[in-house]
Amino acid sequence: MTMTITDLLGKKVVALVSGGLDSTTIIRWLSSQGVRVTAVTVDLGQPDEKDMQDIASRMKTAGAESALIVDGRELLAEYGLLVVQGQGGHEGEYLNTTGIARMATVKTLIDIIKDADVITHGATGRGNDQVRFELGVAHLAPGKRVYAPWRDPAFLSVFRGRKEMIEYCQKEGLVISATLDKPYSTDANFLGLTHEAGELESLQTPSDFVNFVMGSSPKDAPNKAEEVTIGFSRGRPYFFEYNGRAISHASLFNLFSDLNKIAGRNGVGIGIDVVENRRVGIKSRGVYESPGMTLLYTAYAKMLELFLDRERRKFFDIASRRFGDVIYEGEFFGPLSGDLLVMIKHIARDINGEVTFSLYKGNIGFVSANVPISLYDPTLSSMEDVGEFDHADSQGYLNIAAVTARTMARVGQTIDPMKV
Amino acid sequence: MTMTITDLLGKKVVALVSGGLDSTTIIRWLSSQGVRVTAVTVDLGQPDEKDMQDIASRMKTAGAESALIVDGRELLAEYGLLVVQGQGGHEGEYLNTTGIARMATVKTLIDIIKDADVITHGATGRGNDQVRFELGVAHLAPGKRVYAPWRDPAFLSVFRGRKEMIEYCQKEGLVISATLDKPYSTDANFLGLTHEAGELESLQTPSDFVNFVMGSSPKDAPNKAEEVTIGFSRGRPYFFEYNGRAISHASLFNLFSDLNKIAGRNGVGIGIDVVENRRVGIKSRGVYESPGMTLLYTAYAKMLELFLDRERRKFFDIASRRFGDVIYEGEFFGPLSGDLLVMIKHIARDINGEVTFSLYKGNIGFVSANVPISLYDPTLSSMEDVGEFDHADSQGYLNIAAVTARTMARVGQTIDPMKV
Amino acid sequence: MTMTITDLLGKKVVALVSGGLDSTTIIRWLSSQGVRVTAVTVDLGQPDEKDMQDIASRMKTAGAESALIVDGRELLAEYGLLVVQGQGGHEGEYLNTTGIARMATVKTLIDIIKDADVITHGATGRGNDQVRFELGVAHLAPGKRVYAPWRDPAFLSVFRGRKEMIEYCQKEGLVISATLDKPYSTDANFLGLTHEAGELESLQTPSDFVNFVMGSSPKDAPNKAEEVTIGFSRGRPYFFEYNGRAISHASLFNLFSDLNKIAGRNGVGIGIDVVENRRVGIKSRGVYESPGMTLLYTAYAKMLELFLDRERRKFFDIASRRFGDVIYEGEFFGPLSGDLLVMIKHIARDINGEVTFSLYKGNIGFVSANVPISLYDPTLSSMEDVGEFDHADSQGYLNIAAVTARTMARVGQTIDPMKV
Amino acid sequence: MTMTITDLLGKKVVALVSGGLDSTTIIRWLSSQGVRVTAVTVDLGQPDEKDMQDIASRMKTAGAESALIVDGRELLAEYGLLVVQGQGGHEGEYLNTTGIARMATVKTLIDIIKDADVITHGATGRGNDQVRFELGVAHLAPGKRVYAPWRDPAFLSVFRGRKEMIEYCQKEGLVISATLDKPYSTDANFLGLTHEAGELESLQTPSDFVNFVMGSSPKDAPNKAEEVTIGFSRGRPYFFEYNGRAISHASLFNLFSDLNKIAGRNGVGIGIDVVENRRVGIKSRGVYESPGMTLLYTAYAKMLELFLDRERRKFFDIASRRFGDVIYEGEFFGPLSGDLLVMIKHIARDINGEVTFSLYKGNIGFVSANVPISLYDPTLSSMEDVGEFDHADSQGYLNIAAVTARTMARVGQTIDPMKV
Repeated sequence: MTMTITDLLGKKVVALVSGGLDSTTIIRWLSSQGVRVTAVTVDLGQPDEKDMQDIASRMKTAGAESALIVDGRELLAEYGLLVVQGQGGHEGEYLNTTGIARMATVKTLIDIIKDADVITHGATGRGNDQVRFELGVAHLAPGKRVYAPWRDPAFLSVFRGRKEMIEYCQKEGLVISATLDKPYSTDANFLGLTHEAGELESLQTPSDFVNFVMGSSPKDAPNKAEEVTIGFSRGRPYFFEYNGRAISHASLFNLFSDLNKIAGRNGVGIGIDVVENRRVGIKSRGVYESPGMTLLYTAYAKMLELFLDRERRKFFDIASRRFGDVIYEGEFFGPLSGDLLVMIKHIARDINGEVTFSLYKGNIGFVSANVPISLYDPTLSSMEDVGEFDHADSQGYLNIAAVTARTMARVGQTIDPMKV
Repeated sequence: MTMTITDLLGKKVVALVSGGLDSTTIIRWLSSQGVRVTAVTVDLGQPDEKDMQDIASRMKTAGAESALIVDGRELLAEYGLLVVQGQGGHEGEYLNTTGIARMATVKTLIDIIKDADVITHGATGRGNDQVRFELGVAHLAPGKRVYAPWRDPAFLSVFRGRKEMIEYCQKEGLVISATLDKPYSTDANFLGLTHEAGELESLQTPSDFVNFVMGSSPKDAPNKAEEVTIGFSRGRPYFFEYNGRAISHASLFNLFSDLNKIAGRNGVGIGIDVVENRRVGIKSRGVYESPGMTLLYTAYAKMLELFLDRERRKFFDIASRRFGDVIYEGEFFGPLSGDLLVMIKHIARDINGEVTFSLYKGNIGFVSANVPISLYDPTLSSMEDVGEFDHADSQGYLNIAAVTARTMARVGQTIDPMKV
Repeated sequence: MTMTITDLLGKKVVALVSGGLDSTTIIRWLSSQGVRVTAVTVDLGQPDEKDMQDIASRMKTAGAESALIVDGRELLAEYGLLVVQGQGGHEGEYLNTTGIARMATVKTLIDIIKDADVITHGATGRGNDQVRFELGVAHLAPGKRVYAPWRDPAFLSVFRGRKEMIEYCQKEGLVISATLDKPYSTDANFLGLTHEAGELESLQTPSDFVNFVMGSSPKDAPNKAEEVTIGFSRGRPYFFEYNGRAISHASLFNLFSDLNKIAGRNGVGIGIDVVENRRVGIKSRGVYESPGMTLLYTAYAKMLELFLDRERRKFFDIASRRFGDVIYEGEFFGPLSGDLLVMIKHIARDINGEVTFSLYKGNIGFVSANVPISLYDPTLSSMEDVGEFDHADSQGYLNIAAVTARTMARVGQTIDPMKV
Repeated sequence: MTMTITDLLGKKVVALVSGGLDSTTIIRWLSSQGVRVTAVTVDLGQPDEKDMQDIASRMKTAGAESALIVDGRELLAEYGLLVVQGQGGHEGEYLNTTGIARMATVKTLIDIIKDADVITHGATGRGNDQVRFELGVAHLAPGKRVYAPWRDPAFLSVFRGRKEMIEYCQKEGLVISATLDKPYSTDANFLGLTHEAGELESLQTPSDFVNFVMGSSPKDAPNKAEEVTIGFSRGRPYFFEYNGRAISHASLFNLFSDLNKIAGRNGVGIGIDVVENRRVGIKSRGVYESPGMTLLYTAYAKMLELFLDRERRKFFDIASRRFGDVIYEGEFFGPLSGDLLVMIKHIARDINGEVTFSLYKGNIGFVSANVPISLYDPTLSSMEDVGEFDHADSQGYLNIAAVTARTMARVGQTIDPMKV
């Protein structure tokens, strides 16, 4: 089942490439071994990438028979919205921007490259991305195989790390921008950036060691707050407003792009710093940027606060916790994901309203909300005697609750929290 | 079971009082009806209270036979630490600072006032606090009864709201500081402040409508960051360091007080704005201040990131979500609380290390962590070929994971997330 | 908000009646107080009821202006199937047959009686059924009010229990079959019977004290096993087969009726004995009969075993646990129920196949299953070297799992289960 | 990291052996390759094993340098009790009797064989047991290595399955009782038997195809019921009574042995038939016998019914579901297990009382319970007007619950279960 380089000979091989050092090295190495390979790059609106077509020409130079750039931006925007609707961050903090992008990449690829036998990628053998690619392909195209040079002893015997790759490319006369002293590695798409490895492996390196790309760190953000309003219709953001202008986009990608600018420049979602548990069981540290996602995620969370009752919220929180795992672990196309998504979408269909925040140096301050119809009804909660809720009814409610508590006390089940 | 004013005659009645408008009104009204009442105020280091003894004298003036001030500060600090260790915020945001304070109040009271027959409090009939007082007493002193004037039709027929209380006190010649146009109401203890009601009931009122007491809003905080280090030993914060000074306190209350100052002045934990689900099922909005708690809570969360593996973390997140409910709903002395606390304390005993944050205008930025021994081991996660983790092992791992995914695909269980 | 008898005067009042002692008493008492009341009985195929029309005439005799019998059997059968598909038993044992029947009753009633102002029922003030009626009406017809004589002090002052009701009916010359020494009380519908109270309150009374109605106790069942096959299509049982005959029913009620006979006579689902937690927080004991439900529930469980993978199953188990609560607590028409049902129905649509059991004196023994397509593939699990799963891949899988375990051990997180 | 046969040369190798075909083959093959191996068999009171010492002599004949029999019975009994207290069955049905036995085996071994370098076992490469051995050793002795011939290509190239092993042993003149046409394979210890593979892989094979060892199938059990009482003190069964005799055992193993006899002969826990999800993600079918465990597990469940309140029970059910996974997946010595066990033991310390069941042809019928102090209080649940619970209080309780439900209805959150 495990593929080695010799299994690739004579096969239609498609290589997923980002265009960097790994891509160049792998394409050249494969072609030098006689493998005929098509390079495919999925355009995910990478904020750090100037010219996608340039990747294609570099891949051909490196040895690819052909090289394609495929647009995955709207699909990723839709998937990103599902993360928002399911509040599918990972372990509560990181918004799964790279995890969901892997899913969009695989889906885009599989829908386009029907006749490939083998898909190869440059993800390493300790990370989450190899799992995501492998499972994504297994779910969507169970007949296709995956080859990962970073798990192939033949490749590993030549390339132990960046140093050998840089030397190899230099020896082969291939243009690379990578240098050996790169302080950390970055994965990018328009939903967010993941920085990890290198200097960031040390817990002595602060978050702001990172040279942020999608916005400013809170410290460098403007001294003046900006207000932004986001409006949802059936769970979809359908307009936003700032600086007096209401803007609608037919393209969800364009919405994210605009939110990235507004949130990013105010330091929102810039520098989220997490030590997380990878699927393969080891801990790693990531520093994240996801300005637009963070803003949209927070706006949707406020909507949920207004719509979900106590018990529904408890269950949603368990479900969203699982949804975050499902995405992170590469199971987005699997059946549990389907179970969760039907519920998430069922809820989303009822989410309508607007919320306005004040963005200021990393803070998202609540300004106001306009929700035509929700469970929030101030006349019910008011301490003044208004509305349907009768203060005296609480007496019966409490008498009943207290019967249970008194019974517990009498049978010795009361605890002293300091002595448990 | 339900107590009315006539049930109080001839009984030993203890009134829990904060000293404000409600307290003054209730004490006077009870004594005017012939009830002999002892006023008790638990000192919880209320940041908005200058002179606790003044409360006692005012309560006597209002009609209390005697008036006590009882110190509950260290107990509340210990309870606050349990909230931190159990990450027991409510619905993910509000750190339960008022919820846990009610528990400390009841516990302090019950331990001191052994011979009371009836306990009375001024919590209203739509809120959480009545539940917390009632259940707290039921758990700790099942033989005592609770009388709540705000649920007594006799009281309600006279006092419909603040207006009638103010008029009553004025008519009775009692000094009150309350005015009718109070824009919102505040509950205070040194762990945090809860602002709600009044103008805050409208979702058109922004968070910063509140006049913050425990610190500055991010916008008013200094332009220069401050670094603070917190050290944990067996789950307890045993020192903190800022501005080059390492400080230890025998008193956990003193630690909280210092953290409140440092975090508060930098806008940390100031203005948390939540629409939450009260135990009685209605939604209400609260704006919270909890600078020290927020900082300590975040520091402990970073420790947990370093100590809890993937599966343990999943379960802890479910347990901490329940713990937050247990506190919020007044079940802190009940048996489920005990089940959760044994687990929370079991984990806490292994938490040792320090973490340094940069506090800046509401942001808590990661600077560094020193943890002598944890699950985080960069040599395992590194993309370079170092450490025990063999890249090639992932092949077997993935082959196995992919067998399941392929089987799912073949039996039609793969989903398209856009079409579920 | 609380209704008293005087609130009923001049209102259109509909009384939900089962036709027994409570019904007769309440109808006569209401009409004697001048309340004009329509009696409605929902036909739920009560196994202990011979003649539904007889109830109507008795209710008119008792004082009802009119009396209707409404057929709720197919609706209850459909709701019962949802319990099966969601595996929505309560606290793992009792199959919620009375809980779901209350929901069918309310729904049937609300759909038919559009112009009633008030709905009255005979459920007592300590039970679950009052909650179910009250919340069912609140969800489906929030403008209607509920009057419960058992919570009305005016009624309670006259009738403390069965004794007073029997005397009252006798005095009023109303025919009742109830006698004072009834050993326990029974609620019935074709999904199941609930026996509780009376002698059953004592934990010294064995399960088989009950005189079973829907079948035999295991001890009285035949000495010979019967085989029965149940076939599911898109989650619905569409045929069953026993004794060589395959039977299909257009009516789901008819299917349940047949399964009740087959399972009941073999002691299946007869005498389930549970001490359970009522919604109002007190424990009560119930002895249950639900032969057809138990058989269908078990058959569906076997289907789920074949279809749900490990992680999907874990989440389904949490969801089904909540679903059982939702039904039991009367929240079947609330939004959390909707969230759970979309997921449950999404899964059900993929459930196709047949399972054959051997029914023998209370046992449901597995005989065989025919499932055209499922996750169960013996070639994968076989210990012989066949199929896609490569034994050697496990090495990589385990090496990776062991890295985590070894890291835990090295940092002191390994436990000794006897010394925790 | 992966060990091959050559890595074993010159090392201290300990082989875990059960004494059957696999053991004989592996010992001979290892010794024929020059590996010096000590055979260790842990005595787990295997019901199908007559003479443990005979295993030792056979292993020496096969080539082991030395052969030990180590008594693990009391440890396994204690671990079995933890399964009972945590209600740690797997996916709700199978009581994890083999899973927990692997943990007792590893613990027994590690505590005794301090100086081994390598531990080898005969578990195959698709099953759960390899995971349990591997993780058990990694947790308890992270410095030791595990060698599994069934994952070693060198071994696999010679032995593809039972056929080759039988031929090999015959050729080598080793006495084996195994025959090629063994219809299924069995793993045994005194807590239970696991039958799987062979004919049982087909879903056309009924449960009673198995030749039961620990008791009779329900059909073959006596026609007369037997009553048995089990008494718990601080969560431990400290006596049982049947046929008028009360029996206490200092040895928990002896208790299990007696319960096995009583329950087994009445068909209790005999023939549990499950399609389950192995840790490696594939489904397999098992048929189980666990008479004593099933009885004790059910008795403890009844205790929990009487002791756990509604919310505590909800959380316990989630925790016990996880505990079942932890055992099944070989993580019993890991930190999540510790978190769960502190809670399980905390609860167990309050479990005191007796329960009497009637055992009859597979049925466990409730007869009576004597629990000195529990949450069950018939005066609270009674429909008659007795005890502390005031019927009229329910009115306030319900008014409050209905406010929420009506608000949901008014904002359109009510659902129609048939149309979701």
